[in-house]
Amino acid sequence: MKTLQKALSKEGIRSLFKEVRIGLEKESQRVTLDGQLAKSDHPETLGCRSYHPSIQTDFSETQVELITPVASSAREVLEYLAANHEVVLRSMNKDEMLWPMSMPPILPEKDEDIIIAKLERFEDVLYRRYLARSYGKRKQMISGIHYNFEFAPELITKLFKEQSEFATLDEFKTEVYLKVSRNYLRFRWFITYLLGASPVSEAGYFTGQDAEVPDEPVRSIRNSDFGYTNHDDVFVSYKSIQDYVAGIERLVDQGIMSEEKEFYSPVRLRGGKTVADLKAHGVQYIEVRNIDNDPFAKYGIKEENIEFLHFFLMYMLWLDNDHCEPDELIKKGDRLNNEVALERPLSQTQYAEEGLSIINGMLEMAEEIQLNQSSLELIETYRQAFSEPAKTLSGQLVSLFEAGTSHHEFAVAKGQAYKESAEAKPYQLAGYRDMELSTQILMFDAIQRGIDVEVIDRHDQFLKLKFNKEIEYVKNANMTSRDNYVVPLIMENKTVTKKLLAQAGFRVPQGKEYASAEDALADFGYFGQAGIVIKPKSTNYGIGISIFKEGADFESYQEAIRLAFLEDSEVLVEEFLTGTEYRFFVIDNQVKAILLRIPANVTGDGKQTIAELVAAKNEDPLRGTHHRAPLEQIMLGDIEKLMLSEQGYTVDSILAKGELVYLRENSNVSTGGDSIDVTDEFDDSYKKIAIEAVAALGAKISGIDLIILDANQPAERKSCQYGIIEANFNPAMHMHVYPFKGTGRRLTEDVLDLLYPELKK
Amino acid sequence: MKTLQKALSKEGIRSLFKEVRIGLEKESQRVTLDGQLAKSDHPETLGCRSYHPSIQTDFSETQVELITPVASSAREVLEYLAANHEVVLRSMNKDEMLWPMSMPPILPEKDEDIIIAKLERFEDVLYRRYLARSYGKRKQMISGIHYNFEFAPELITKLFKEQSEFATLDEFKTEVYLKVSRNYLRFRWFITYLLGASPVSEAGYFTGQDAEVPDEPVRSIRNSDFGYTNHDDVFVSYKSIQDYVAGIERLVDQGIMSEEKEFYSPVRLRGGKTVADLKAHGVQYIEVRNIDNDPFAKYGIKEENIEFLHFFLMYMLWLDNDHCEPDELIKKGDRLNNEVALERPLSQTQYAEEGLSIINGMLEMAEEIQLNQSSLELIETYRQAFSEPAKTLSGQLVSLFEAGTSHHEFAVAKGQAYKESAEAKPYQLAGYRDMELSTQILMFDAIQRGIDVEVIDRHDQFLKLKFNKEIEYVKNANMTSRDNYVVPLIMENKTVTKKLLAQAGFRVPQGKEYASAEDALADFGYFGQAGIVIKPKSTNYGIGISIFKEGADFESYQEAIRLAFLEDSEVLVEEFLTGTEYRFFVIDNQVKAILLRIPANVTGDGKQTIAELVAAKNEDPLRGTHHRAPLEQIMLGDIEKLMLSEQGYTVDSILAKGELVYLRENSNVSTGGDSIDVTDEFDDSYKKIAIEAVAALGAKISGIDLIILDANQPAERKSCQYGIIEANFNPAMHMHVYPFKGTGRRLTEDVLDLLYPELKK
Repeated sequence: MKTLQKALSKEGIRSLFKEVRIGLEKESQRVTLDGQLAKSDHPETLGCRSYHPSIQTDFSETQVELITPVASSAREVLEYLAANHEVVLRSMNKDEMLWPMSMPPILPEKDEDIIIAKLERFEDVLYRRYLARSYGKRKQMISGIHYNFEFAPELITKLFKEQSEFATLDEFKTEVYLKVSRNYLRFRWFITYLLGASPVSEAGYFTGQDAEVPDEPVRSIRNSDFGYTNHDDVFVSYKSIQDYVAGIERLVDQGIMSEEKEFYSPVRLRGGKTVADLKAHGVQYIEVRNIDNDPFAKYGIKEENIEFLHFFLMYMLWLDNDHCEPDELIKKGDRLNNEVALERPLSQTQYAEEGLSIINGMLEMAEEIQLNQSSLELIETYRQAFSEPAKTLSGQLVSLFEAGTSHHEFAVAKGQAYKESAEAKPYQLAGYRDMELSTQILMFDAIQRGIDVEVIDRHDQFLKLKFNKEIEYVKNANMTSRDNYVVPLIMENKTVTKKLLAQAGFRVPQGKEYASAEDALADFGYFGQAGIVIKPKSTNYGIGISIFKEGADFESYQEAIRLAFLEDSEVLVEEFLTGTEYRFFVIDNQVKAILLRIPANVTGDGKQTIAELVAAKNEDPLRGTHHRAPLEQIMLGDIEKLMLSEQGYTVDSILAKGELVYLRENSNVSTGGDSIDVTDEFDDSYKKIAIEAVAALGAKISGIDLIILDANQPAERKSCQYGIIEANFNPAMHMHVYPFKGTGRRLTEDVLDLLYPELKK
Repeated sequence: MKTLQKALSKEGIRSLFKEVRIGLEKESQRVTLDGQLAKSDHPETLGCRSYHPSIQTDFSETQVELITPVASSAREVLEYLAANHEVVLRSMNKDEMLWPMSMPPILPEKDEDIIIAKLERFEDVLYRRYLARSYGKRKQMISGIHYNFEFAPELITKLFKEQSEFATLDEFKTEVYLKVSRNYLRFRWFITYLLGASPVSEAGYFTGQDAEVPDEPVRSIRNSDFGYTNHDDVFVSYKSIQDYVAGIERLVDQGIMSEEKEFYSPVRLRGGKTVADLKAHGVQYIEVRNIDNDPFAKYGIKEENIEFLHFFLMYMLWLDNDHCEPDELIKKGDRLNNEVALERPLSQTQYAEEGLSIINGMLEMAEEIQLNQSSLELIETYRQAFSEPAKTLSGQLVSLFEAGTSHHEFAVAKGQAYKESAEAKPYQLAGYRDMELSTQILMFDAIQRGIDVEVIDRHDQFLKLKFNKEIEYVKNANMTSRDNYVVPLIMENKTVTKKLLAQAGFRVPQGKEYASAEDALADFGYFGQAGIVIKPKSTNYGIGISIFKEGADFESYQEAIRLAFLEDSEVLVEEFLTGTEYRFFVIDNQVKAILLRIPANVTGDGKQTIAELVAAKNEDPLRGTHHRAPLEQIMLGDIEKLMLSEQGYTVDSILAKGELVYLRENSNVSTGGDSIDVTDEFDDSYKKIAIEAVAALGAKISGIDLIILDANQPAERKSCQYGIIEANFNPAMHMHVYPFKGTGRRLTEDVLDLLYPELKK
């Protein structure tokens, strides 16, 4: 079938050939920090396993299974997997972690101490009890990765048009996947050789009843006959879809397997709910099941290996092997695989030659279909492993063991390191660290609750959430379908916002809009001796704004008007409100957080210099740079130094104990300011004002800024003790979740409550 | 009360003193184009008079009453009045107009031919029947303007703090308005002199039963005893609010008046539903009722006169007159007013000296409170009228009559001119011509239906609509609360839009996003020989976009990729869809309009040059410049000339009969393109696609652009015969309402139907 290779190399087809849809499932055992099987239940924070799409348990209560959505690249699927890992690791008990190996940790002596997953559906529990009886509980404790793989549907359509052998698209598609599966089964020893990573077992995996056990480390116990395989009497043909389906159905009918899903082939044909559906609608994708957990990879598999597996699967289609008898192919593959799996990891494999010819074949294919240079280089890197077995995963592990580290010590150290890494920056989410913090936190919460999360546009912070069939789009973690279109339009126009709030009886800075300097100057008297702010109507970043806290003389007023008109054809003159500014975060008619922001500052201890105090304050893990943490580090730049010198200090001054010094005028968190949560101590009267003002604007989610004269004095809507200076339609949330001081307010949970009230915790 | 003047001059107060809240009510008779009282009913298109807030009928079925909302400047209130005029004039029969005079047109001989307004509420009809009996129908046919006036509430509060005479704010406020009313009544002859504009009557106003009639033109029949006044036995004191209320209540009790509203004083105290409320809650504002319709003004009153009246009313507060006995003041005022009203318009008034002292007093006040220069100049202009009576309104009218134009001829000519002016640009709305056309059209429709319209931000096209208590905000005539916040966010992000549409199974241009030129170049083959578009991910106005309709060679592709990456860090390569682009306008799951836009063009007649053909085409009143008309004029600039020369023409070429020549590549209406409505002829299958695609994006209002290969061939969602290239969250509407060819689609009505289904026509 050189014809197929020709078709795959064609312009317009070869690019489709490179496209991929991958989904991963990855199991791991939940263990204590010293590597004992956890005795606790699956974490409650992870919602209910009866519906959770991405975090499940497999055989035992401790066997966490992470399931990614379908992704279109190695990187994307790894991002999903990384996020799932962080969610699970942060959701479990502090003294627990994930065991990074495929082979289980030391297993309890008594079978009853291996707890079957406590699932809601009784039939699920019954099935696991049957497995325990049939295979023994210990084998069921092995973990690994399933790699679900689909070609671009358009590729299949285009290839179909290039051939004449098959009458329908479904038949052709099925044959494509059958061919890939047969070849994969035939050559999978190659993957076992390279990526096998279960060389030894801990105590309790093999028991006295096992007739035979490997006496030396091997490449992959899991992929050998000592692993988790069907009984010897199970053989299913991949010759045709009819044979495949009939084979599985017969095994179930004869009681050799209890259910179709007990068919543990390294490659399963997928599509539909039962195998019979495969006949009706064709194969949709395949599930490759022989990937060991890679303990060197934080998330159990490295991106390059995901990509390499993809190229290998492409090659399984490319490879011209059609002259062979299908069943013989598989049987030979099984034999070779078992042999390789049981080889010594540091020894040369007996099939090195075939291995090298596969590499060469993959490179030929890559050239033909014009894979890019980095892909060619990636394939090339695997060649070395055939001359240096220590480069394989099992080789690397065994080298460590020989150097004196035990399997257990290694696994515990890796598990702990991965756990620590997951907890180091709880405000970030692995896989999505380039996104805004508020979005990362919301994604974490959504995944934890069992809501499907798809990043529709990464740069734009655009998420698609899905629970059951209910789809919600969220941008910037705070823009949702619960607000109507007019709401942000109102808030982004400060004049409109003020008008509406004033009409509803709230206090806003009084002021006037001017279209000519003459009119503005004529009204100089109107603004009297009180403090005023003069600003262009529509500008940001403070350009053209003058503030006269104590009022202005006519000349300063005139100059300020002139400056403002340079920026806009309309100018606002507003009263300056005195007091302290607080951000009230209102969601669904409730004040969920109140934040006070104060400028960058340090407090002396009588010993340290200002520079030292700043350095010490910057050590807080909540402080970072470039908005990658909830607080920013305090800089010691020109502005800060000027501010210090105005107060008679330099960075080398030593402050008296308790002396507070500000390094900035502005209170922005982005210039090192502190965020202080004051939600609980605030008088309800202000919360009422904030709630009603947000309601007057028709908004469900808003961060509204109040200037308050004296927060100890209650106020009412009509009071002059407060003023509303802004309502924000895109208010940051992370600063409330992780404030410098005070209680964190998980506003992201509140947003999810609004979108999916049925999942409210 | 010099104290008051001092207080009013204070910094912080004088500016408040200048603030104003004005509302106008203006009556006019509906007549035929030759000035006969209309026989038709009040136009049905104007909704129902039982709730219409701005367009009503007064006494007779022909007497239209226009009511403006409260405005804060002369200009603003006149904008409202102008808009109301245009709505009424365009809503009535083609052969009807508004009679511009206060005095009615020729009245029918028989009383029964003067039709009392056909109102829904029977008590309203009964009251008018009573008036007809009590005053005669003819006097009720006089029209005029009521000027509702309120000081800034904050002014009253501040003045209240400056005095000690009154114990409560309500008492003080009431006294402020009582003072203004008394002084106004005393000096109103001054207004009658300047603005009186009812010098003569047409046939049928006076009947044989009238004992006395003026034998010469006077300044104002309406404001004289020959006008529409209470019977002689009606006198009400303005000494105190108690006296005022008791006076009116007594007249009703004694049966001298039938209802409180029959009190036809030139100044009414207002606030609350009954006059008794005035005692309980104080006077809120006053209603000045002696303003004649000014036939020289398109809308019955000129802006400068509205402003001058405002200054005059301010002066009525300023004026120190407190030593006079209140009732004497009024009685004197009534006498003077009647005398002046009956003076010959071209004669000097006997009270010129007092008139000039009022002008001087107003100017003094203006200086003290620092009114701006243009206000001082405005006041000054009225001085001349006291030396030259021909400058008064009645003087101007009588001068015309003496020159040979009859009252009737003048009124008919003015009425017709105003009617024509209102109909000249039906896509615009007087008062708001600087706003976007779509918004002007929507405002027209809203006013017509009886929805209150407030312009919240003019520059931002931000409207507040209100019907009953239901408030809706609308921006750009198409952004409403019926769409949710996420909808525009989806549409403004082309990647997200495409993803969602593709996920829902619609055809969108296939393509890929690249973050590096290398990757994009590696995929050159993917896009094959087909047409492609290469563009920066987020850019507008075509910058950095390359289109290869027939596909590209590698070098052109490479160059296009390079150019695109200059504009953005992400680049899209998309298939180029061939076909014709149509805009489908979907509102509330229905296709309301389909538009085809074609580039600027002319068709030859074998005689005219291209330049002449363009000039002729540009005469279409639908073509304007700067987006002030639904279509733009065709320019003959460099681009057009180049395009012509490429086709072998110059602007002086004469085209053969029927020969079509394009002057532009692009089909934008903004560069002279034609808009062609094709809604009716379109196959339903495409409408279905458009509706479902907009629904897939969750939108209620969207303009969605489809490229269609052959509109005669039906399509379905999965077809390759069409592609969706964009969904717009801010689609222009005016081009559908007033297309170059085809049926206009009043989409603004559909938007109102969506917002106020209860008002659906």
